Amino acid sequence: MNAPDLMPRVQPRPVPAAMLRALRERFGDRCSTAAAVREQHGRDESAYAAIPPEVVVFCESTEDVAAVVALASEHAVPVIPFGVGSSLEGHLLAVQGGVTVDLGRMNRVVRVNPEDLTVTVQAGVTREQLNREVRDTGLFFPIDPGANASIGGMAATRASGTNAVRYGTMRENVLGLTVVTASGEVVRTGTRAKKSAAGYDLTRLFVGSEGTLGVMTEITLKLYPLPEAVSAAICNFPSIDAAVRTTIQIIQMGVPIARCELLDANAVRAVNRHSGLSLRESPLLLMEFHGSDAGVREQAETVQQIARDHGGEDFQWASTPEERTRLWTARHKAYFAALQTRPGCRCQSTDTCVPISRLAESINESIAEADAAGIPYWVVGHVGDGNFHLSYLIDPDSADEWATVERLGVQMVQRALRLEGTCTGEHGIGLHKMPYLVDEAGPAAVALMKGIKLALDPKNIMNPGKVIAV
Amino acid sequence: MNAPDLMPRVQPRPVPAAMLRALRERFGDRCSTAAAVREQHGRDESAYAAIPPEVVVFCESTEDVAAVVALASEHAVPVIPFGVGSSLEGHLLAVQGGVTVDLGRMNRVVRVNPEDLTVTVQAGVTREQLNREVRDTGLFFPIDPGANASIGGMAATRASGTNAVRYGTMRENVLGLTVVTASGEVVRTGTRAKKSAAGYDLTRLFVGSEGTLGVMTEITLKLYPLPEAVSAAICNFPSIDAAVRTTIQIIQMGVPIARCELLDANAVRAVNRHSGLSLRESPLLLMEFHGSDAGVREQAETVQQIARDHGGEDFQWASTPEERTRLWTARHKAYFAALQTRPGCRCQSTDTCVPISRLAESINESIAEADAAGIPYWVVGHVGDGNFHLSYLIDPDSADEWATVERLGVQMVQRALRLEGTCTGEHGIGLHKMPYLVDEAGPAAVALMKGIKLALDPKNIMNPGKVIAV
Repeated sequence: MNAPDLMPRVQPRPVPAAMLRALRERFGDRCSTAAAVREQHGRDESAYAAIPPEVVVFCESTEDVAAVVALASEHAVPVIPFGVGSSLEGHLLAVQGGVTVDLGRMNRVVRVNPEDLTVTVQAGVTREQLNREVRDTGLFFPIDPGANASIGGMAATRASGTNAVRYGTMRENVLGLTVVTASGEVVRTGTRAKKSAAGYDLTRLFVGSEGTLGVMTEITLKLYPLPEAVSAAICNFPSIDAAVRTTIQIIQMGVPIARCELLDANAVRAVNRHSGLSLRESPLLLMEFHGSDAGVREQAETVQQIARDHGGEDFQWASTPEERTRLWTARHKAYFAALQTRPGCRCQSTDTCVPISRLAESINESIAEADAAGIPYWVVGHVGDGNFHLSYLIDPDSADEWATVERLGVQMVQRALRLEGTCTGEHGIGLHKMPYLVDEAGPAAVALMKGIKLALDPKNIMNPGKVIAV
Repeated sequence: MNAPDLMPRVQPRPVPAAMLRALRERFGDRCSTAAAVREQHGRDESAYAAIPPEVVVFCESTEDVAAVVALASEHAVPVIPFGVGSSLEGHLLAVQGGVTVDLGRMNRVVRVNPEDLTVTVQAGVTREQLNREVRDTGLFFPIDPGANASIGGMAATRASGTNAVRYGTMRENVLGLTVVTASGEVVRTGTRAKKSAAGYDLTRLFVGSEGTLGVMTEITLKLYPLPEAVSAAICNFPSIDAAVRTTIQIIQMGVPIARCELLDANAVRAVNRHSGLSLRESPLLLMEFHGSDAGVREQAETVQQIARDHGGEDFQWASTPEERTRLWTARHKAYFAALQTRPGCRCQSTDTCVPISRLAESINESIAEADAAGIPYWVVGHVGDGNFHLSYLIDPDSADEWATVERLGVQMVQRALRLEGTCTGEHGIGLHKMPYLVDEAGPAAVALMKGIKLALDPKNIMNPGKVIAV
């Protein structure tokens, strides 16, 4: 495979025999050095080849994690937290060796407080599991990245998804954390109160830190009452531009739309084939409205009118819960659907996000460049947030394609920054975007981040080599 | 005055003659050592006696601030940022001497981007000024602490106010910052995009850091479309408990109420007298609904029904903008109104915030203790957030009253923490709540905060002696 070599090359830090012995003693067969286990933990859903850790420990409690990190701290060995492996920027690759802490068995919903609209979960609980377990309370957790990610992973990457336009991202929805720090100490941040002005916002410092400042083991989240009424609509447009301009106006008018997803014709085609749908294969917005019966009707009428003004067609409705579930499941599987349209390909996804008024420019120019390049691509977007993913389907054996996609990716990020946006709306920095972060934040801000990193992790053992170079 | 001596006593760090000379050279008569100017800058709205800084510099630009901080860094002299002086926890007292940087002249709205629902302001712009200046765009900024505070001060204390129940606090509404760091460097954080997963969340680290990590000089904020319809209602209740239980149910049902303010009979009486209103002097909820015409009607009907179930009376409506302005202005002046009910008194305000289901317990027990103590008090609350202020009107010459109020304050905080809440919903830690922060966050979390503080401000010059002991 000719995937570009973006990995910072540093000497791996070997796990000393004494540490391995101590791990085996405590964890028994929950401590594995089997090649298959290591290989599976050294990759994510990105296009990059696996870089396996030296050892994988399956933790079942905060105390387990603290024990691993205390040993890692003693021996100055890297620690990489692992949820379900669905990140997209090389977050999980063991570029400096070390121990991967698998949190998948920490999958307990610790405490539901429906009367306060809060829930506390272990880091390995997935978003689908969480929603299944709280369904009886009449509440739900809205954040939904494409994958059925773990809540810990979602907090670590500051994830969002299709509902963020109304409900915010993990940034807005995490109330508090239990974190194992780089010294192996257990710290709690935040409270269950909705707001607080008490001291530095450690919760939001850990959210989005991608495992580089500590391992989150428990997360307290906000929940929301299931809306009285929900309706989902599909609206086809003559062009992507028309769909985007409709979205811009929806947001500018303050319509409290719950979901507003763009799919280009390529994405629609892939989704149809993969999920057996029969959506018309032109650019479309997939929308959802939450509220009272009257409120939902009112929002939908407003949006239909805006859409018509931009050449959008009559809404097609998905009114039953089953139809909606089918539609959104198909949307969430778009990544895998698209992968199947070019056999043997790897997918490289972009993730820029810009102020809403600049979205048309951001998307249109990116698509013109993609068309010119001639490499298959597809577009989906959380366009209500100004965020979209233009994803290339790359022949992994073509160095040319990798180089072209990399060049186009840089151009997209440069454009997003020029439009006062960000290089990543929701996937995070990981390995791949480290140089983009410097472009975006500037060396002075990155120096502050580095100062914080070294203050909290002086031995640079927490997921080292990611986010910022230390 | 017998106000309790809560100030950490450390040796003031004198401003060396060379630094004073340099300041005078650069700033001329914008650099003042006049006693009256120093005195005015060494206090806030709290009950504590002023501790004046050695010198006050009136800055007019980020470069001005950077020049002061660079000098202060060179000479290891404390720097205290000052907006309008409306903080409530001793934030502005120069407990270690030094220079106060007055940002009041940095009162320019730098850039309005209505098409993106964003605005960038200098730190000295006040919330009322901001709303005047953006009114023509059809947008508004909802965060409204009681005082007409500066946006910089509001960001520094993670302020909220009456609209937070729907629109969030400064935590949710600051998109980006220009900050002068402790070395005098200028750093920009965030972008104008609505969300980002790019690196550590420096924006939210500075928000709520109370001037201890750097001086915010420009702030980029979210704006919101003025709602199509607004209506405000007053609902009297037979008891505070009934009003609080109504609130709890409103929140649990997910009614998107925009404002939900509790006033006890004492607060109503003070407000009536101060603002010439004639509200019935029993506990009441002051509510506001935002939305479409139909949406507002629907919300109000739902809430009226909930209120009736708890013995609440028929709503009285404030439907015209003028009536509403009069009502909310009166509410915002409650602090000054209450001060006038006991001539010569000082006011000590509490600020706990708890998960919504624990609010009744939190308020009821606090009021029982206040009644038993026999010191005049009044209660207002952003009860939709679980946050309320029980404020004592203290005879400043009575050591007994000070001691009693301090004891009751400790009990209130202990109760809030037991109920999984916070010692401060919106006023911040300042001087007064430093021990409470340790109780709330625990020594391990405070140690992380200290590590961050020393990483970003190794000479401990940024508002030293506040938030955490270094």
